[in-house]
Amino acid sequence: MRNLRLDICYDGTRYRGWQRLPGDANTIQGKLEQTLSRILGEEIEISGSGRTDAGVHAAGQVANFHCSSTMPADEILAQLRRYLPNDIGIYSCREVSPRFHARLNAKQKTYCYHILNSDRPDVFNYCTNYREPAWLNTAAMQQAGSLFVGQHDFAAFCTKSKSTKSTVRTIKDVTVLRYGDQIQINITADGFLYNMMRIIVGTLIEVGRGVRSPESIPPLFNGKRQDAGFLAPAQGLCLLGVEY
Amino acid sequence: MRNLRLDICYDGTRYRGWQRLPGDANTIQGKLEQTLSRILGEEIEISGSGRTDAGVHAAGQVANFHCSSTMPADEILAQLRRYLPNDIGIYSCREVSPRFHARLNAKQKTYCYHILNSDRPDVFNYCTNYREPAWLNTAAMQQAGSLFVGQHDFAAFCTKSKSTKSTVRTIKDVTVLRYGDQIQINITADGFLYNMMRIIVGTLIEVGRGVRSPESIPPLFNGKRQDAGFLAPAQGLCLLGVEY
Repeated sequence: MRNLRLDICYDGTRYRGWQRLPGDANTIQGKLEQTLSRILGEEIEISGSGRTDAGVHAAGQVANFHCSSTMPADEILAQLRRYLPNDIGIYSCREVSPRFHARLNAKQKTYCYHILNSDRPDVFNYCTNYREPAWLNTAAMQQAGSLFVGQHDFAAFCTKSKSTKSTVRTIKDVTVLRYGDQIQINITADGFLYNMMRIIVGTLIEVGRGVRSPESIPPLFNGKRQDAGFLAPAQGLCLLGVEY
Repeated sequence: MRNLRLDICYDGTRYRGWQRLPGDANTIQGKLEQTLSRILGEEIEISGSGRTDAGVHAAGQVANFHCSSTMPADEILAQLRRYLPNDIGIYSCREVSPRFHARLNAKQKTYCYHILNSDRPDVFNYCTNYREPAWLNTAAMQQAGSLFVGQHDFAAFCTKSKSTKSTVRTIKDVTVLRYGDQIQINITADGFLYNMMRIIVGTLIEVGRGVRSPESIPPLFNGKRQDAGFLAPAQGLCLLGVEY
């Protein structure tokens, strides 16, 4: 069996998230599997580097799949580009070692969160921005963000799920950037718990609003979910990339 | 009667164009009139600086309307922002002289056309770009574009409409810019005939492809529609601004 790697981008607005759901549910994984199965004439199952929620976007999702078809990778790429909808894009399709697994081999991931810090209308990016009309103090947000770096228990920063064994993760980098009224928060970690990125961003936004101090962050690593910030909306979130 | 000016932006993807149509057709003018009438409690009719086709966008459309309501302009602005959909934005709403008319007083307009000159996937801007995978020669396009500047008969560059009296217009400026694989064509004129911008752009794209020379442009001012280029798709087009 061949093993192929896909580098993928998508606008998640129209989808119920990455993970395939029973029935005809509109998911990214489902759409990719359906299209690949039709192109290759065999049942294809793909593994993504991780799930993204409904409405979350990706500029650098990675997935892999096994197949017995002999169709060249370039031809699979061309066919995928022909048959996938406009809001799912494929950067590349290439042969990889049989042992490559998009989820299990992922060493670190970077997510990006976009905030439009203005009440000016922005009709062209409303699906990829969270809008906060009142001024956010990005210096305080960066100060608070830096306190997340390192190995911590992120139990207060996730929505509980049955499958989670450990809630300890290592954050490598948190960057809060402002370009005019556009704010971008980038976080790189060895892994993200369910909703972890969105709850950290919600906590940083509360710091930016001035209703929470940077000093309130460290105690949260021994805290409960209700001590941390709100769940920032999905639409502002984008999976930037995965490293192996 | 008061006279109010609106500065408007919209993502035209979901709409059947600017102009109100009979019935419940989804148009920008219709949506604005419906919302204003509900806010002000009186029948409102608005005049735009000009129509835009189905799928065409605006970053700087201007319109005006008369009303007898005494609601302050700031309050009308706030209510419009509350009730309009996310793909129609209002920059400002302000009192103007009773004689101001958005269409009749327009001195010049600028349209912008966006081309993604690449086959790379771009899932976030596919509704606002025309995609041309093969390389376009923008130097030749700029050379050809400059030949449009001045007063000419643009009969070959419009789709015939009954109401058109004269097909003579004056183009003030044509700029073809490339930023990496993104090409932007800006044209400023004292007025645009029906489909004029899109046919000029189609003609410039043919020059960029090398199938038409810049020298083929001047004879078109005495030519027929079929001598000029193709009608470039609506989605790449955006009304940038109107000057009074």
